[in-house]
Formats: sequence, C-alpha cells, structure tokens
Amino acid sequence: MKFYMPVSYYLEENCIKNHKKEILECGKKPLIVTGKHSSKLNGSLYDLISILEDYVLFDQVNENPTVNLCEKGARMGLEQKVDYVIGLGGGSSMDAAKAIALLIKNPDENKDCFYQKKELSHLDVICIPTTCGTGSEVTSKAVLSRPELHEKGSISHDIWPKYAFVDETYLTSASDSLIVSTAVDALAHLIESHLNKNKNSFSLMCTTYGLSLFKEMKEELIHKEFNYKKLMMTSSIAGLAIAQTGTSIPHAMSYDLTNYFHISHGLACGYYLVSFVEVVMKKSQEGKEILSLLGFSDFDEFRNWMESLIGKPGLNQKEFLIELMNQKKAKWSTACVNITKEDICFIVHSSL
Amino acid sequence: MKFYMPVSYYLEENCIKNHKKEILECGKKPLIVTGKHSSKLNGSLYDLISILEDYVLFDQVNENPTVNLCEKGARMGLEQKVDYVIGLGGGSSMDAAKAIALLIKNPDENKDCFYQKKELSHLDVICIPTTCGTGSEVTSKAVLSRPELHEKGSISHDIWPKYAFVDETYLTSASDSLIVSTAVDALAHLIESHLNKNKNSFSLMCTTYGLSLFKEMKEELIHKEFNYKKLMMTSSIAGLAIAQTGTSIPHAMSYDLTNYFHISHGLACGYYLVSFVEVVMKKSQEGKEILSLLGFSDFDEFRNWMESLIGKPGLNQKEFLIELMNQKKAKWSTACVNITKEDICFIVHSSL
Repeated sequence: MKFYMPVSYYLEENCIKNHKKEILECGKKPLIVTGKHSSKLNGSLYDLISILEDYVLFDQVNENPTVNLCEKGARMGLEQKVDYVIGLGGGSSMDAAKAIALLIKNPDENKDCFYQKKELSHLDVICIPTTCGTGSEVTSKAVLSRPELHEKGSISHDIWPKYAFVDETYLTSASDSLIVSTAVDALAHLIESHLNKNKNSFSLMCTTYGLSLFKEMKEELIHKEFNYKKLMMTSSIAGLAIAQTGTSIPHAMSYDLTNYFHISHGLACGYYLVSFVEVVMKKSQEGKEILSLLGFSDFDEFRNWMESLIGKPGLNQKEFLIELMNQKKAKWSTACVNITKEDICFIVHSSL
Repeated sequence: MKFYMPVSYYLEENCIKNHKKEILECGKKPLIVTGKHSSKLNGSLYDLISILEDYVLFDQVNENPTVNLCEKGARMGLEQKVDYVIGLGGGSSMDAAKAIALLIKNPDENKDCFYQKKELSHLDVICIPTTCGTGSEVTSKAVLSRPELHEKGSISHDIWPKYAFVDETYLTSASDSLIVSTAVDALAHLIESHLNKNKNSFSLMCTTYGLSLFKEMKEELIHKEFNYKKLMMTSSIAGLAIAQTGTSIPHAMSYDLTNYFHISHGLACGYYLVSFVEVVMKKSQEGKEILSLLGFSDFDEFRNWMESLIGKPGLNQKEFLIELMNQKKAKWSTACVNITKEDICFIVHSSL
C-alpha cells in the first residue's frame, strides 16, 4: 500500500496574493500556460500577473491539448528563457503546463519523449485550477491528445506540481454547464477510484469523504445552486484519490467519445458512469456502497439524477465504440470486478 | 486551508526488503538510529542491516530522547561520515533520527539550534516505525526532552522523512502494554486533531476515517486481540491528521506527567483524553461527534472503556499539575472551543 502526494496545496480566497512569496521564490520568469479566454474573464490571470515581476504568456491552450501544442509552448518558453511554469485554468491548461515544463527542461527532446519511458527532470510547476473537476493540481498526470492517432492519454512521466493554489472565487464566473460537467468529472474520479482494483485505505479514505461531500451537493447541482468552495474541495479530494489508484473504465471509454465525437471530458465520463456502477453492483457489494455514500435509495434514483443533470448523448455508433474499447483490454482490469466483453456492450448500449 | 505531506509512504509485509532500491539510493552509509532492544527483538534491525552494504549503528535511544542524546548521535554520524539517517523503532527513535539528521548536516551548530527559528537543511531521513502510535513517520515534527528544564516539545524545524516504510509484522512481537499505550497515543492524535481549532477538510477527512477504523478495534484492544495492519494504518492516518493541525490540550498536559512522573507518553495522553472530550462536549456539538464516530452510545461508555483499557494513574499532585498547565496558556487556544482555567482544573481533577 502506497501513499504519495508531495504537492503544497492551499485552498482559500485571495490564494494567489496570499502566496506571492512562494510563487516568486520559484524563479525569476515563469511561463504562464492558460486558455484564450476564461482566465481573463474570471480575473485569475490579472491576479497572477499583478504579483509577478516578469513573465511570459502562452494563452493558446484549448480543450484536449495536443502534444504539438505543448511543443509550441515549450519553444516559446525556451526562447524567452523562462525558469518555471504556471498552469492556470482547467485540466487542459494544467496538463499542458506539466508537459511544457518537461520539454523546456530537456531541450534536446521533442514530443516523442512524452510517451517514452525514460527518466527526465522538469521545471517547477505551479497549478492554479479555475474549474472543479480535473484534480490535476494534486496528481502527477498530464493527459494529452494525439489527434492523428485518435488517442488521448496521460504521458509517461510523473510531474508533480510544487504548489497548488486554489481560489474558489474564480469559479463564480464559470458557466453553469462548465461547473456541472467538471463536477461530474470529479464524481467520476471518486467513483472510479472507489471501484478500482488499486484502491487502498488511503484512497478509500479520500473517496468515502469525497462522495459524502458530493452527496451534500447533488441536489444543488440540479438546481444550479453552487457551493464553490465545496466544489473545489471535492474536486481536489477526488484528485487525491486518483493520484493513488488511477481512473477506470468510464474514463478509458470517455476518451473515444471525446476523440471521435468531440464530447466534453466531464460529460463523456458522466454518460458511462451510471452503467459502470450498475455492472459493478451485479458482481460486488462495492457498487451499492456508491449509492449509499451518495445518498441514493436505489439505482433508479441515481440514474434519474444523472439524466436530469447531463441528459443522454443520443449517439448511434455503438458498435464502433464497443470495437474501440475491445482494442484496449488492458484498461478493463482497472476495475475491482472482472469486466467482460458483455459488460462493455451493456455499458455502451445503456449509456448512449 | 493547507495540505502538505510529502513523504513516500509504504505499508506492507516485507516492506524493507521490497524497497531495498529506494533505501540504497538515499546514500552510501546511513546512521541507523534505534533503541537498545526492541528493533533487535522484532527483527527489524536484522532486516535492515541485511540489505545495507554499509552502515553505522547508534542504538542508544531510550524513551523521551533528550537534546544531549541527539548531539551524541550526531557526533557519531559526523565522525563516521554517514550521508543519510534511518530512524527505526517508536516515536523516540524516529524523532531522534530527525534531529540528528539536522545536526549532522550543520556541523557548526549544536543542540541550541533545535529550538531556534532559523532555516537549516538536513540529511535525508527514512522512518521505519515498529509501534502503532506516534505517526512520526508522516509528520515533520521531532519531540525531544530537555530534562534540566523539565521541558518536552517539538523542535522548531520541519524535518519531513523522505520515505516511511511500515511493516505491521514488527508489531507482533511487541508487548500488549506497548501496543495498547501506543494505540491510545494514536487515538489522542485523532481526537485532538478532530477537536482542534486548526482543523480543515483534509484533517477532518483523516480523523473521520481514522476514528471509524479505531471504532472497529476498540473491543479487540480490551481483549488484547490485535489487528496489526489496521493498528499501523490507523496510527499513520492519525499522524497525517496531526501533520495538518497539530495536537491539543491532552498532549500539552501529558508532557508534565511524563517529565515529572515518568508516565509513558501514550498513557499520559490517554488519562487526560476522556475529560478533554467531556469539556468540549459541554461547549460544542463537536465533542459528541467523537462518541458517535467511535461507536459509543454515551459518554459513560467512553469513560468506562478507557478505564478498562488503561486504568487511572492515581496521582495526588493535582494542584502542581494545574499550575504547570497555567504556565502554558498558549496551548489552551489549540482547542476548537474556549478553554478556561476551570476547564483545566476539571480535566486534572477528573482524570488522575
């Protein structure tokens, strides 16, 4: 049984300003890795820039960042001689920041190194999440896309942020749909960790607590009444859980929905989540624990709640999606029960 | 709200042998800091030595290690040119190892530096606990004694172990009384963190889970039927909790019982624990949470359980102990409720 999570994590209002000292001690000139819009709209970019003496801005991160984009960010960082990297935004910005910090520190490498097993160091990374789903601020993973291969998955290197600075006020300007889809991603992390073959006492401590926090928020999410601090906290605790166990079937299946049908990550996970729990319930008591921890009296209540929250995608290409999942059988063994071809068929058919 | 716990933590049978690679990568020659007997009796010292190519043994740690003892250990380490330190045993050995690692790295300093506020680095420390109470393997604290001042308290420096290797089998050769007294120390960590003014969602996650683990063991402890792995796990989770919040009144009061009356640390905390919960219960709902999480139906059941487990010390010097506690009022504010002079009197009179 292992536990490791070396990030210095802070969650508080005015987090960036409160920790100016720690940020400035990381180096002289950071590369800020962020998206085009949201960090400007929610004020986080302004808060960050206002405490920095010097910086370089790479604000080209979009949903599902590619390995090519990370190469581009690293070139900018190298040219401008930055000495640390700040990922500001959702999971895309933070994951891109991790990969860019790796490439800048290893200028002789290119994007090929991302999925190679070799020991490489990286620049210090600071993560500042402004959505409530990824948990990337407390994990060492960086999920990137390779569109030409229709592949999406974490790079092979463990890149732990040095600091995570979380300020729930940035969430107040996010759209309802973004908050819901990222919250569903956090729920997927909690459920997939709780029903994971790699679970241990530490991960169960996180998932038990995180699911109990989610229980208190599940009706509020339907009515778009958000407890921003609790959403941020739950997302980070879910991240702590997957940092120990990894994710499982719904995440593995979600990547195909995103790669081929451009469905956002949180929703893609959410669509598969209920049927995955149903499959586990048929084989183990552990599935029922999820319902109990989330405060659902039976399975139908869970399914109805999820459909009220995110609907159904209405996709027809089911056999295609089943075939894609059949090609990644290594992922099947991440669940706490034995998953068969019939289970995958069932999940696809009842979810889409 | 902050969370930080950078230790690589492992809990498994054959833990030392399984992680030979990580241990050897820490350096060429460790100083092993341990007690005179127990690490020889439980086999842990043999397991450790058998994987090391070179080492220096400092096996002079006793209960309540002093600053002088740590100076002596550091001198041995410096003379023999060790390059990392392994604390093997209970909290005394691990805490002494941390302090010794600080002094060896700073040869111009002496014991005076322990309680000074200055930035000092330290040699890498590995902790291998063989009792189930201290949690020192997952905290940055090192509690040392200064007998000439009748003082006992953590040094001012944060010394995080690089690794914690926990193997529950070493506990099987410990005496029943040692297991009980260290388990009561772990319970004190859980309760004092849960009822701490510094508590946050992370520490509450640990204490809620840790107290639920303790609930499952409380009758077994009375009957001396031990689940060694769960005891070790609970102790580490309790350590994780106090790493975030620190301890509170029972620990602060316990040091006087240990310094003046030579009562072992776990028992000294345990004697004060029940009345401390009683005081909090009078002022806040949070006290009752403790009973509920531990599965006691009322307060009397909690008190009777504790008395069955550890008895009462039967000390008469109550006014003296109250006066000592009156001299450390800074400690009073560590509790989640306002603690008065009358509360301290009540705790002393009803506990001893």
